Order: sequence, then C-alpha cells, then structure tokens
Amino acid sequence: MSREPDDLPPPPRPLPAEPLASLDQLLPGQAWAIGTLSLSAAEIVEFARRYDPQPFHLDPEAAKDSIFRELVASGLHTYAAVFSLVIQSNLLRAISLGGNAFELRWPAPLRPDEPVSVRVEVLAVTPSRTRSTRGTARLRYVATRVADGVVVLDAVGHHILRR
Amino acid sequence: MSREPDDLPPPPRPLPAEPLASLDQLLPGQAWAIGTLSLSAAEIVEFARRYDPQPFHLDPEAAKDSIFRELVASGLHTYAAVFSLVIQSNLLRAISLGGNAFELRWPAPLRPDEPVSVRVEVLAVTPSRTRSTRGTARLRYVATRVADGVVVLDAVGHHILRR
Repeated sequence: MSREPDDLPPPPRPLPAEPLASLDQLLPGQAWAIGTLSLSAAEIVEFARRYDPQPFHLDPEAAKDSIFRELVASGLHTYAAVFSLVIQSNLLRAISLGGNAFELRWPAPLRPDEPVSVRVEVLAVTPSRTRSTRGTARLRYVATRVADGVVVLDAVGHHILRR
Repeated sequence: MSREPDDLPPPPRPLPAEPLASLDQLLPGQAWAIGTLSLSAAEIVEFARRYDPQPFHLDPEAAKDSIFRELVASGLHTYAAVFSLVIQSNLLRAISLGGNAFELRWPAPLRPDEPVSVRVEVLAVTPSRTRSTRGTARLRYVATRVADGVVVLDAVGHHILRR
C-alpha cells in the first residue's frame, strides 16, 4: 500500500511524546505535524554566502530585478531547515539509519520571516527481506506557509529505518 | 532531444574561461568538469550539528555502530558542497534565474578528506514558449570519488536560465 504525492493529504497528528521505536510504527497514510519554522533575512543571506551565492539570495536590492522580485531563501536552505526540524523531532530520532535519495520540489520560494508549518506523511513502508532489524520507508515532507497555505517545499525522502 | 541519467556519460570538457551567457549555449549531451572538492571531518561534524545531527555524521566512535561503520558526511552536506561548487563556477553564474526541483541520489556516502570530482551534464534544454529571454534546463550533477570512481552524488537539477 502506498500513497502518491499528489493525493490529498490526511490530517496530521501531533508528534509522539516518545521517539518512534520501530519502522513497524509507521503506516502509509499517517501524517504528523512536526512544527513551524521561519528564516530571517540574515540567516538567508548567511546560508547563501556559503552554499548558494546568487543575487536573489544575497541582496534585497539585487533581488528586485530577479524573477522573485524580493529576497528569497535558497531552496537548499529551505530543504535544510525543514529536514533538520524533522531529524531533531521525535519522529525518526531513534530509528533513522540513513537515507539514499530525496526528491525536492519548491512550488514557491520561502521569504524572510515567513512562518511555515512542516508535515511529514508516510507514503510507503517496506521491511527488508533479508534483515529482520531494518527496512525502508518513503516519507513525504511538506512545508506550507501558515499565512496562506502556499507550499514552499514538497519533498520525498527515501529512508533506511530500524525495526 | 534529451539523455536519461542512466546513460553512459560523455567525456567532460574544461569549464569555459568566461561565464556562459545564454541558455542557448547548452546542448544536450555536453558535460563539464567543474572541479574537485573534499570535506574534512571537522566540516562534516559542524554541518551535521546544524542541519543533520545524527550519530554517524557527528561522532567517529558512534559511527562505528552505524550501517556506514565510520563517520560520513550528511547527504545534505554532500549536495550543498557540490551545488555550491557549480553555482560558483563559470557555468551558470551569469544565466541562473532560479530552480524549482532537484532529484538527489547518494549511491555511496562521502567520507572525510576524500576528494571527489564534480561533473555537470546537460540532459535537456527547453526555451520558454512565452518568454523569449528565458527557458528551462535539466542538468545532471555527478560527484565521483577520485580514488576509485565510486559515485557519491547523482542528482538532476531543474533550472530556469536566461537566454
């Protein structure tokens, strides 16, 4: 059983009080509200200087001439901020063994000081056929602007998880 | 005309002496050698503390018990390092307007102080039908360990580029 990214999402539940202990606690269709984040203009510029030094991520004036018309976070920064929030949550902390792929889509850019809520949804869970202590899961990460519901990141991570 | 990621890659050419000036200079099948990079253990740990705090990215001792058996870079870090090398090169500097998707695969992890060479290949180029001054391109990013040819990142970026 699996769900595809374009299906309507299920309503998210709060994060568990204790970290998940096994892949077996994940079921396709489940979703969790991970939390909310925003990036300041200073954080956006600092990250961009190091990893994505393009004018529309570095300079509000130069950004006016870009297709974004204003300073926006590097998509890499949006991904890093969302991913780190999930990794530091109770969801995967005790079961994450690694990962080997991610598909990223940025339907809209993330602007400074714009809160986005992060949801993680289970798309598919596959216990390993050869190792009883692990398996893989495809998890969808969606970051949505709190103010207007616009999605700024819609991603699918391919995780290796402990059972 | 387009090439798929699993095809054999063409031999890469050196970066142009001047930044590319137009999307029209990209042709499917072209490839460039962007340069070589490596990440020190200290850099790997510093990045992981902030964006991917998992034991196998933070602590060489704890990493011995992981599926990697040693400290390895966060895949997010490998992506950031490769992407920043490309963005700072002459390839896209003058024509990059933004991007809206990336597909990432990490066939093997990147270990400390392990040089990888970065190649960018043109998969597809599509001039905009409505705007004569821009278009889109799918570019494949491949980072390969210099010592043994093992690929640590194989990614496809969806770029918006100036014409």
